[in-house]
Amino acid sequence: MKTIKIGLIGLGVIGAGVVKVLQENSELIEMRLGASILLKRIADLRIEKGRGLPIDKSILTTKAEEIINDKEIDIIIELIGGYEPALTFLLQAINNKKHIVTANKALLAKHGQTIFNAASKQKVNIGFEASVGGGIPIIRSLKDNLAANRFESVYGIVNGTGNYILSKMTNEAITLQAALKEAQNKGYAEADPTFDIEGIDSAHKIAILASLAFGCHIPIEKVFTEGISHITPTDINFAKEFGYRIKLLAIAKKKNHGIDIRVHPTMIREDNPISNVNGVLNAIKIRGNAVGETLLIGEGAGAFPTASAVLGDVMEIARRLISGDKPHFVGIKSHPKIKLKPIDEIDSEYYLRFSVVDKPGVLSKLSGILGKNRISIESVIQKGRNQRLGVPLVFMTHKAIEKDIQNAIKEISKLDIVIGKSILIRVENGN
Amino acid sequence: MKTIKIGLIGLGVIGAGVVKVLQENSELIEMRLGASILLKRIADLRIEKGRGLPIDKSILTTKAEEIINDKEIDIIIELIGGYEPALTFLLQAINNKKHIVTANKALLAKHGQTIFNAASKQKVNIGFEASVGGGIPIIRSLKDNLAANRFESVYGIVNGTGNYILSKMTNEAITLQAALKEAQNKGYAEADPTFDIEGIDSAHKIAILASLAFGCHIPIEKVFTEGISHITPTDINFAKEFGYRIKLLAIAKKKNHGIDIRVHPTMIREDNPISNVNGVLNAIKIRGNAVGETLLIGEGAGAFPTASAVLGDVMEIARRLISGDKPHFVGIKSHPKIKLKPIDEIDSEYYLRFSVVDKPGVLSKLSGILGKNRISIESVIQKGRNQRLGVPLVFMTHKAIEKDIQNAIKEISKLDIVIGKSILIRVENGN
Repeated sequence: MKTIKIGLIGLGVIGAGVVKVLQENSELIEMRLGASILLKRIADLRIEKGRGLPIDKSILTTKAEEIINDKEIDIIIELIGGYEPALTFLLQAINNKKHIVTANKALLAKHGQTIFNAASKQKVNIGFEASVGGGIPIIRSLKDNLAANRFESVYGIVNGTGNYILSKMTNEAITLQAALKEAQNKGYAEADPTFDIEGIDSAHKIAILASLAFGCHIPIEKVFTEGISHITPTDINFAKEFGYRIKLLAIAKKKNHGIDIRVHPTMIREDNPISNVNGVLNAIKIRGNAVGETLLIGEGAGAFPTASAVLGDVMEIARRLISGDKPHFVGIKSHPKIKLKPIDEIDSEYYLRFSVVDKPGVLSKLSGILGKNRISIESVIQKGRNQRLGVPLVFMTHKAIEKDIQNAIKEISKLDIVIGKSILIRVENGN
Repeated sequence: MKTIKIGLIGLGVIGAGVVKVLQENSELIEMRLGASILLKRIADLRIEKGRGLPIDKSILTTKAEEIINDKEIDIIIELIGGYEPALTFLLQAINNKKHIVTANKALLAKHGQTIFNAASKQKVNIGFEASVGGGIPIIRSLKDNLAANRFESVYGIVNGTGNYILSKMTNEAITLQAALKEAQNKGYAEADPTFDIEGIDSAHKIAILASLAFGCHIPIEKVFTEGISHITPTDINFAKEFGYRIKLLAIAKKKNHGIDIRVHPTMIREDNPISNVNGVLNAIKIRGNAVGETLLIGEGAGAFPTASAVLGDVMEIARRLISGDKPHFVGIKSHPKIKLKPIDEIDSEYYLRFSVVDKPGVLSKLSGILGKNRISIESVIQKGRNQRLGVPLVFMTHKAIEKDIQNAIKEISKLDIVIGKSILIRVENGN
């Protein structure tokens, strides 16, 4: 029986998951593959720990180069994350004709073109199913299953930490700070949660999905990214009253020749199945002109689901190596006619909350400014009586252009009768 | 640019969908593939109609042999359905070294081994993503994405017609007959709805999924299959009262060395996302030891979603042909240690409804018989007052063995105080 030798760079939580799944399911993997997979070497800077895994210490090293330059190793799994030294390692490995499997969404979102070009030149495979949605079969679905579709949109919850926090806030009526603390205690959020909370991780992932779906390069800095740190129980409650839930969504839509791509807290109707995807789960909806809507839900992070995706890629590449098949490339060609829509130009429905002085004429004044800016109101709630702190005045709008909304908010915020910060949350109805 | 020539046998609703998607998305398919796909010939017995498609009449034929024996054709799409002449056509085509794409779940469930063996011998690919779940990426997920998992269960709604009928009955409180009529009017159910209503279509599909997940051949006649024709608004309402919905589920689970595989109307908790998958949608949940639970939802039938899956397979095979790659086989090896569990041996929670004479001691009598048969009761509802027709007495049980349940029902049904038919509905909690 053939043996495919692999190397692992990065023995963190996910790396340890890969080792465990590979050990536990080795017999089954061998049977399905008709070959065995040998983890020949593991590199990690803090390798002395070994993470309590039952592995032969002799395969551990602190030097990634020992894997990258090992002539016997066919496939390298990169799980160190971040830009550097991951990029350098990957490019060296590709130059040495190693096939690559990576879960590094930040790296792919920023340097994907460089990596794919190098891989194409050296004729090696790049597996990156694990970069988005953990074990959810999203990458291969876009590349293969749904390849005959003209994609219209891809959107969903792609960050488990953010979803855990918003779910907690919604179900237990606690503040973001309290929910974040719980997420950190459970190991769902890191000590510095910026990437998750501020939507940066989601932006990386939607950039990868959109580039696959729409066949073009998405410069990550052009993805409009707004986090959830300003979301309060007040807005979550108003959302509920209107029949909505607030989720951190990553959205990519193609309209005519433009792509609308963005990450922000979003109100979605409670009858949309995504609104009920809670905790650390992810959910991604794909709309194509043949398939209609397909929704994939599952564990979007964590050691084992991510290991499942990593090893699925390893097995696919192994299968190709055994058969002598050519590398399988994803045809991401920059389509010159496609342009990214600036956030100013998008159209959406909006939730707007102002704190106003509770006196006659306020509603008329604010709705007048909205009307002047071509914003038509779907419903309005005004509540409570508190002269000192102001009362909330909440509008749900019909579809409007973002620029008009921003102008209206600017104008309204200048009014004497408006106190404190004005809140805007975009609404997604899947159109 | 290379051209891959394909032939289509069967120009029914789905065949026409394939033609339309192929035409509408041709530019995009060409770009993604780096080659063009030419539909060289279409065979259908009633070809004169052409189904109003803008296709050159000269490519139409009534003789499948003209496609099967066409030396220029690389890939044949089989969409006639049923056992014969589909089987004969496929085997002839495979013998002529044609690659096959099929949506024929009945044929694969019954003659899959013959077909796969022939394909393996002739070294051709068989694409069958469209056979289960329409456009939902389920087959490739089991084969590739999740290949590193030891699968524990695959279950869900795999028949859109049945789901449409049950959803209608649940939401509009109408009878099965009324819901079926509406399904037929909308084209969701055929004139003879037996395959859908009686669970046969679902049985074919779960046999295919289980054989992939558990790596063994599932003789279709061994799949316990119970349809929905006995489901009444009464049971749907009781289900709601207990916090459940009734769905036609196809279930396959592996426990130790046995496989529990069955199709039947099933009560699932209303907080299980599958319970909210309504209308013609399908939903399939996969549980693997690495990935945890993944849920895929989408349009499980219909011309375009099915065409999406068919053409995804065509493109994958085309890609392999262009690269000169070897055929990709699914390793379904009959695992001798695996045995199928007879329905008698399964354990489940149960909903039991009896019509009883409304007099003292009845509850004690029935619960006594249940207890004697090792069935423990979770909750009970007795309702209404009607001496003539009897009143419903409903039990929800804890986990019990099917054989015990059947024995208890037999014993209870013989009692004088029990009137009419006793109803059993299995409960699924995903364990």
